[in-house]
Amino acid sequence: MAQGRAAAFLAVGSELLRTERLDTNSLFAARVLARCGFALVEKRIVEDDVAAIAAAIVDLLRRAELVVVSGGLGPTADDVTREGAARALGRGATRNDALLDRLAARYRRLARQMPPIVARMAEVVDGAEVLENPLGTAPGQLLEADGRTVVLLPGVPREFEEILTVHLLPRWAAPAGVLVRSLRLAGVYESPVEQRVSPLYDRFGRERITILGGRALVTLVLTTSGTRAREELAEMERAFTAVAGDDLFGFDDDTLPGVVVAKLRERGWHLATAESCTGGLVGAQLTAVPGASDVYVGGVVAYSNALKASLTGVDAALLAAHGAVSREVAEAMAQGACALGAECALAVTGVAGPAGGSAEKPVGTVHLAVATPAGQAHARHHFPGDRAAVREFSATFALDLLRRRLGGAP
Amino acid sequence: MAQGRAAAFLAVGSELLRTERLDTNSLFAARVLARCGFALVEKRIVEDDVAAIAAAIVDLLRRAELVVVSGGLGPTADDVTREGAARALGRGATRNDALLDRLAARYRRLARQMPPIVARMAEVVDGAEVLENPLGTAPGQLLEADGRTVVLLPGVPREFEEILTVHLLPRWAAPAGVLVRSLRLAGVYESPVEQRVSPLYDRFGRERITILGGRALVTLVLTTSGTRAREELAEMERAFTAVAGDDLFGFDDDTLPGVVVAKLRERGWHLATAESCTGGLVGAQLTAVPGASDVYVGGVVAYSNALKASLTGVDAALLAAHGAVSREVAEAMAQGACALGAECALAVTGVAGPAGGSAEKPVGTVHLAVATPAGQAHARHHFPGDRAAVREFSATFALDLLRRRLGGAP
Repeated sequence: MAQGRAAAFLAVGSELLRTERLDTNSLFAARVLARCGFALVEKRIVEDDVAAIAAAIVDLLRRAELVVVSGGLGPTADDVTREGAARALGRGATRNDALLDRLAARYRRLARQMPPIVARMAEVVDGAEVLENPLGTAPGQLLEADGRTVVLLPGVPREFEEILTVHLLPRWAAPAGVLVRSLRLAGVYESPVEQRVSPLYDRFGRERITILGGRALVTLVLTTSGTRAREELAEMERAFTAVAGDDLFGFDDDTLPGVVVAKLRERGWHLATAESCTGGLVGAQLTAVPGASDVYVGGVVAYSNALKASLTGVDAALLAAHGAVSREVAEAMAQGACALGAECALAVTGVAGPAGGSAEKPVGTVHLAVATPAGQAHARHHFPGDRAAVREFSATFALDLLRRRLGGAP
Repeated sequence: MAQGRAAAFLAVGSELLRTERLDTNSLFAARVLARCGFALVEKRIVEDDVAAIAAAIVDLLRRAELVVVSGGLGPTADDVTREGAARALGRGATRNDALLDRLAARYRRLARQMPPIVARMAEVVDGAEVLENPLGTAPGQLLEADGRTVVLLPGVPREFEEILTVHLLPRWAAPAGVLVRSLRLAGVYESPVEQRVSPLYDRFGRERITILGGRALVTLVLTTSGTRAREELAEMERAFTAVAGDDLFGFDDDTLPGVVVAKLRERGWHLATAESCTGGLVGAQLTAVPGASDVYVGGVVAYSNALKASLTGVDAALLAAHGAVSREVAEAMAQGACALGAECALAVTGVAGPAGGSAEKPVGTVHLAVATPAGQAHARHHFPGDRAAVREFSATFALDLLRRRLGGAP
């Protein structure tokens, strides 16, 4: 029935079998796979259970040459996708020391104690290729068996999307003779980007352009083939770069936190963060970048108003006058973060929901503030979606606000 | 891992494996099943393919004592869930003459020719119980095999939800000694209903109340047990009926079109419909009620402006002045429908999307008009969701607007 080579999708997570949450990663996966000539022939959602995961992988490998697995790669006892995949392929799993060192270094950079369970994330199925996670701790794994492929990816949507986009899309999208260039945009939503680029469809051919809109990043995938492939790709890149404008932060496997770290390093500036509703997500993404410690000094997670006052020196009167989710408090948090010993600071305060919203400040209201020697910036957003989505949007738009303030070409 | 008896869910439909649409019926199913003591242990989504459907049912029956299947019950060659289920259970399928007569009667009531392929919907897997579809043509089927159960339900969300709610919830929710009463509300969304009833949680116990919010109907499921079960249920029913107010249209297996037909019959009035964006959905729901022909004379589907003018006599100047989606045109359509020879009329005109929206009348904007000897009513809505959702909301809210105008207790 399906057009293209057969692929299957497996989401792991008992929470996806209850009454509130649906897997959504499969939609993004279907788009990347379509771009690469694969079609999904089946989706499954199973519990966090080794036997269920193993049985599903075995079964799906009979129907599809590629199986994309989402979720169950975290550090807790519930996260058993590694074990399930190993059992499905009749392999063992071994602690990967290089990976463990990277995880440990990440915790050192954050000046945090690494909990022993984190070591579980360094367990790699024998023979697997490790796919670095540019936005989180749990890496992906790619397994080949009898000419078929199983990919294990973290279930957090932005991490799932990022690993697919930066590691797997370039590898799968380019059969012999096809050239691929990805333009990466942040601080925008997918629909307006689509509107802006649509005038270019006629000129270059609709089928050579794919827009991958993830939770908070948009990727334009350009492809060419034939004798003039190289010149045509350069021409497409110029045209789309012009349309993308300031929203373009990089190309191909560039990541937003990586670009921010590189720009800070160029300028010789340091960064501190003050996070409320994101609770450490911005710091976690920055410290996922190797060498982030050159520029990222750390920060505070000021979730309560008391901590906002004591850790970032936000005035109690200011909090009382404007509320914790306000431009004034975001800017005061950024000032307080600078005082930790950094030229630059980034602050996030918002209502992630599901509770805490009001008519004036509904769930999704987020204030971002950035302070740099080159000037300050503030943005108020009303992000769509559930708590996880609001937090992800907040972290990405915050890093992007800083990127824009740091200036320079991608 | 899961709490309760094991159930599994299978969605059939190649469109659910592409890049735009997710199965959402499983969320509603999970809520009904949870109310009945079942927990989902696995979900699958497969293509419209007999072998794939059969293999999935066989496999899921090994893991779960109840398998709920959604989709693939329509009349076209793509709709092969009946064949898949028959193959999975090693049974045949036979044309059910009584069912075929009911389908034929339905087309006669609509004064339409029954296309020969409709007969496919009268194919019943041997030994299956037919579950009447109060809101559409394709009935559900319930199969028992080796003490396990497979239920085939149409994929259209409101039909899926309705059959689960009126046929299966009462059957599964009441183990010995448990009493169940469902209050059925229309013309409201789930969240405000939840807010209104939440003060009653403390008094009666949160665990005895379930709110099932479907696409356009809300059902309050009340349960009691023990020696005072009957008195307590009566007391709960009184309290929740008071809170539900005018939004309550019925109880247990009452359906909204059924209630509307009954009220019209009580009054001795007849109804004609004039539908634009719903394209016949209101008529289809009304004529699904046995005996609807006593009160429903038929109607027009006036999709184009030309037909709005020629069939319902809507003035071209009126259309030009206000646009097809306007209070004025909805009311004129209702007047025109009355002129077909009915005391009552119901008209629907709206922007179902995805195209056709404007800043002033975005996708989801729908005008409903009702005319009865007891007076007229108009409502403007902005329904959420995709084209299918807007159409379903429109049909339900239209019938409900008429119900309210017809008055009387549920």
